[in-house]
Amino acid sequence: MNDPIAELVGLLSRLPGIGERTATRLAFHLLEGDEELAGALGGALSTLHQVVRRCEECGNFTAGSRCAICLDPRRESAMLCVVARVPDLVAIERSGAFRGRYHVLHGLLSPLDGIHPEHLPFDALLERTERDGVREIVVATPLTVNGEATALYLGELFSERGVEISRIASGMPHGGELEFTDQITLSRAISGRRKV
Amino acid sequence: MNDPIAELVGLLSRLPGIGERTATRLAFHLLEGDEELAGALGGALSTLHQVVRRCEECGNFTAGSRCAICLDPRRESAMLCVVARVPDLVAIERSGAFRGRYHVLHGLLSPLDGIHPEHLPFDALLERTERDGVREIVVATPLTVNGEATALYLGELFSERGVEISRIASGMPHGGELEFTDQITLSRAISGRRKV
Repeated sequence: MNDPIAELVGLLSRLPGIGERTATRLAFHLLEGDEELAGALGGALSTLHQVVRRCEECGNFTAGSRCAICLDPRRESAMLCVVARVPDLVAIERSGAFRGRYHVLHGLLSPLDGIHPEHLPFDALLERTERDGVREIVVATPLTVNGEATALYLGELFSERGVEISRIASGMPHGGELEFTDQITLSRAISGRRKV
Repeated sequence: MNDPIAELVGLLSRLPGIGERTATRLAFHLLEGDEELAGALGGALSTLHQVVRRCEECGNFTAGSRCAICLDPRRESAMLCVVARVPDLVAIERSGAFRGRYHVLHGLLSPLDGIHPEHLPFDALLERTERDGVREIVVATPLTVNGEATALYLGELFSERGVEISRIASGMPHGGELEFTDQITLSRAISGRRKV
């Protein structure tokens, strides 16, 4: 006989940052707590991938065909920010520092893992850039090997098309202590120094 | 228009120890990860309260009418361990220190919250004790005010019935919860039980 509690604990343990102990605690909370929470969560998860789609324009998650940012006429359409994942877009939105639109790659170039340019939505990005008269693309992919490789590729792709390509700055994080900062970050912070 | 991601984040945030930041991370993982996990988790949660019942005998969670412990003929039936919640039973089982059977109260006496003896399954405990010839009851309710009050009440209830009532004692810190106690401490608490 299957043990439904063990099964639930096993599924919860597959979530990031949830160990078996936490999963067990969550499972018992859902069992002992009000039945409504387990049911509502079950319903939301069961329909999640049917209800949430990718924006036809930018790849952001949305319940409609286009996301709220693409539908917002106040957003500057001549400026695009390229990100690897939707959570990155959410983080940038939370900062309030960007008023243009986005393009979500849902991945990064990674030749070793077999992720080549044809696997990422670069064609859509090119088409969109021409159609909307985009003048600047801010590449906000992460500062990792794959993130840098993707930024380099985009730089080459757009360099001859009269579109300005910029890269988010690399350096010391806000509140960072020099003593505890890694060498690469420090090197970048120094080489990227700006006049005060 | 409802935002299904925000709705999911809101539901996940209602789980214990899950803040909005963690809930957001989990929601995006479920969206970006394989669709199978969201679906499986959704299904398990949707049916959870239909599939998991309380054991007719002891109150433990079970998929059948009786739990695995009540069905196990090797468990000593003359010895009962009374616990407040199923996670407490699971913790004691993990310690391996108890070979009898259980009785889960699914609560504790708490006059201030209006939880009186008639709200807890004491009648079933009395009936079971007589029917099965139970000789000893180990009260493993937590070392909290309500846990102690429940232990005292059980002591009085069984003192004139020729049933030995013991209380876990040694090792447990004052105010401690069974669910979060390490195995050695729990073993000591059970082997060092004293007459009430």
